Amino acid sequence: MAESVKVGLLGLGTVGTGVASIITRHQKELQHQIGCPVEIKKVLVRNKQKLRENSFEDELLTEDPQDVLLDDEIDVIVEVIGGVEQTKEWLITALSQQKHVVTANKDLMAIHGATLLEKAAEYGCDLYYEASVAGGIPILRSLSDGLSADRITKIMGIVNGTTNYILTKMSTYGSSYDDVLKQAQELGFAESDPTADVEGLDAARKMAILATLGFSAPVSLDDVKVKGISGISDIDLDYAKRLGYTIKLIGIADRSEGKIDVSVRPTLLPNEHPLSSVHNEYNAVYIHGEAVGETMFYGPGAGSLPTATAVVSDLVTVMKNMRLGINGKSTLAPMNAKQLKANDEIHTQYFIRLRVIDRTGIFSAITSLFAEYEVSFEKLLQLPVEGEELAEIIIVTHKTSQQTFEELLERLNQVDVVESVESSYCVEGGN
Amino acid sequence: MAESVKVGLLGLGTVGTGVASIITRHQKELQHQIGCPVEIKKVLVRNKQKLRENSFEDELLTEDPQDVLLDDEIDVIVEVIGGVEQTKEWLITALSQQKHVVTANKDLMAIHGATLLEKAAEYGCDLYYEASVAGGIPILRSLSDGLSADRITKIMGIVNGTTNYILTKMSTYGSSYDDVLKQAQELGFAESDPTADVEGLDAARKMAILATLGFSAPVSLDDVKVKGISGISDIDLDYAKRLGYTIKLIGIADRSEGKIDVSVRPTLLPNEHPLSSVHNEYNAVYIHGEAVGETMFYGPGAGSLPTATAVVSDLVTVMKNMRLGINGKSTLAPMNAKQLKANDEIHTQYFIRLRVIDRTGIFSAITSLFAEYEVSFEKLLQLPVEGEELAEIIIVTHKTSQQTFEELLERLNQVDVVESVESSYCVEGGN
Repeated sequence: MAESVKVGLLGLGTVGTGVASIITRHQKELQHQIGCPVEIKKVLVRNKQKLRENSFEDELLTEDPQDVLLDDEIDVIVEVIGGVEQTKEWLITALSQQKHVVTANKDLMAIHGATLLEKAAEYGCDLYYEASVAGGIPILRSLSDGLSADRITKIMGIVNGTTNYILTKMSTYGSSYDDVLKQAQELGFAESDPTADVEGLDAARKMAILATLGFSAPVSLDDVKVKGISGISDIDLDYAKRLGYTIKLIGIADRSEGKIDVSVRPTLLPNEHPLSSVHNEYNAVYIHGEAVGETMFYGPGAGSLPTATAVVSDLVTVMKNMRLGINGKSTLAPMNAKQLKANDEIHTQYFIRLRVIDRTGIFSAITSLFAEYEVSFEKLLQLPVEGEELAEIIIVTHKTSQQTFEELLERLNQVDVVESVESSYCVEGGN
Repeated sequence: MAESVKVGLLGLGTVGTGVASIITRHQKELQHQIGCPVEIKKVLVRNKQKLRENSFEDELLTEDPQDVLLDDEIDVIVEVIGGVEQTKEWLITALSQQKHVVTANKDLMAIHGATLLEKAAEYGCDLYYEASVAGGIPILRSLSDGLSADRITKIMGIVNGTTNYILTKMSTYGSSYDDVLKQAQELGFAESDPTADVEGLDAARKMAILATLGFSAPVSLDDVKVKGISGISDIDLDYAKRLGYTIKLIGIADRSEGKIDVSVRPTLLPNEHPLSSVHNEYNAVYIHGEAVGETMFYGPGAGSLPTATAVVSDLVTVMKNMRLGINGKSTLAPMNAKQLKANDEIHTQYFIRLRVIDRTGIFSAITSLFAEYEVSFEKLLQLPVEGEELAEIIIVTHKTSQQTFEELLERLNQVDVVESVESSYCVEGGN
């Protein structure tokens, strides 16, 4: 091993700045762990002229990726620049140059993770990506090491901070989605184009990564069923609250009898469920293992320093591996083939809200339809709609298959006394 | 590496049985991870004749420790038999025979951890002990790997399931300590001699282990200040609740300016603090790092299978290390000298409950004493005591030093209108 480990940094945005700051501030601790100093040798930036707070000397910065990727002295590439296709090519170049890679890029890992991990194995290099899921929470490590003896049956998580912030504020203040989104954008908790967050895509990427690792099966982004939060009304949040539930954007990866189902969607959780009290921009991942039972990991899902902590912790692992001469040997190929559940193999509870004409006999017409599909009720609420001859019926069902529920929904829409099916959600975490 | 890894098991109680069960049931997953089968070759038991549920063949069981410790074919010793001094000697023998060790023994690690880790390093062996703290929660791993880039400033945990169960029931049902303890004993959540649990000793052992690892400094059991829960009255729980707090037995390891303070004591936490909603026998460890901010790890603190999951996960790590030829190289000696805080360097908020004679002017006599010590109030409650000419005053102070508070307490006890200082607790988790 050289007298110092040399790092090439791709990107100097908020996370990159955090990485540089931790490497500087915690140099003593890092040296203790890896036995030599850590040095950032080159930094790829999009624009050298941009004013920056960090005091990197000018000659460290470059706008040419090759300056970093082909530098013989650089041992490890830290990728915090984002992007997918071009970044993938850069990292393959880096791996082919025998450089280890640490990345915080969930988009990249969700789409090209399998390819990149193969390339890393081919070139005998490390590829770590802890920061790509749930920022400061060491969740990938916990799945791959801490719970390595167990068989994971369910992973349930709040893995997107923006949507959790929005839902927390909507629920606390009874505000509308649009108002809270605008506020979140002003405060920097939501992007100016919030689509990837609010439509669930960001969470889906993370769930694909978690499911792949937790179930040791090649789950891709396309396998994840996604629904975002933009359709949630404050009325639903209010009814959920009255019935003892909190609505969260929940990613669920579920495995039983060798078959997998992965989804991201707004979900009702009982208030006493540990994930219900995860507020604002925080993330949490709840894991159910056959032997260990329930565990939960909670922490900041994003942010410069939390994410940078995960990146530098991965860097420490790479550098320890360098000291021990075991790089490229810790990643395992998935052991299981991927088999997805069909809709009639997925069972959950549902919340449904209907507007019906407020007349004698209507209620029994509706309940008899539920009875026909053998869907029974756990909770039920009927309220008149003010100023109209309508009533709202809110039902929380017992567990039923997704297929049955979808058929029932279609039938409900055809019943003429049903004015509209206003909303429906999955309900998780019950008994 | 041999065609299988051979394990010697010391102890076949609840955890030992769980270990054997996981090794059998998850054999396929284990083989995928380590590349060869895992086999339990010998099991030390105290009494071979005892009826057991597991179907170990008779010749695997032995009452003679040397049969296991000196068996040349055994690669790893899994210690789940408990005990301190004799067990320490056994493990030193095992290490001297080049056998790696996995232990779930917190008493042993809190007392002789440093010695055993030195011996392991001397003989080039692995020694892992994840299961010794917080059962199924992979917390030691998270501290040493997942957060390795960060500087940990505070570890706060509910690390004893028995006391958390008792406090949860007292708080939920308003029952007395004695009633709940008796019930917990009947249900198997408390030992027939509950002293080590309820007096905080068990939690103190775990905090010594956590602080040593988190602060990279040799914190021993003697350094931990301990107070148990046996003195908590249901009245205190009730007042705490009225003021928006939950009382938990909290272990705190705190570091600032290079100085450390470690304690275990009943502590008031604001209801919205994540640790307040950790109920029953569950454990949780809350970590504050300079860069990562707040993270929390939640899960079962004990139990056969959760604890066994942690043991077998350690075993997987040992076996992976064997495959890579890097045993004995992952443990780091503490990098920092231990410097403990003096009482005037420890600052916290306090809750105090006084009984005073209910007469005009008393209140001002008491508050002027607080003013003399420059201790200000965050919350205050005064209530008459039914049927007596007494009042109760409950005060939550702002932060003050432990030394100041102790001096103030002593003075309060001398004021003649103060009938008694009924109780006082630390308050954590405020702003």
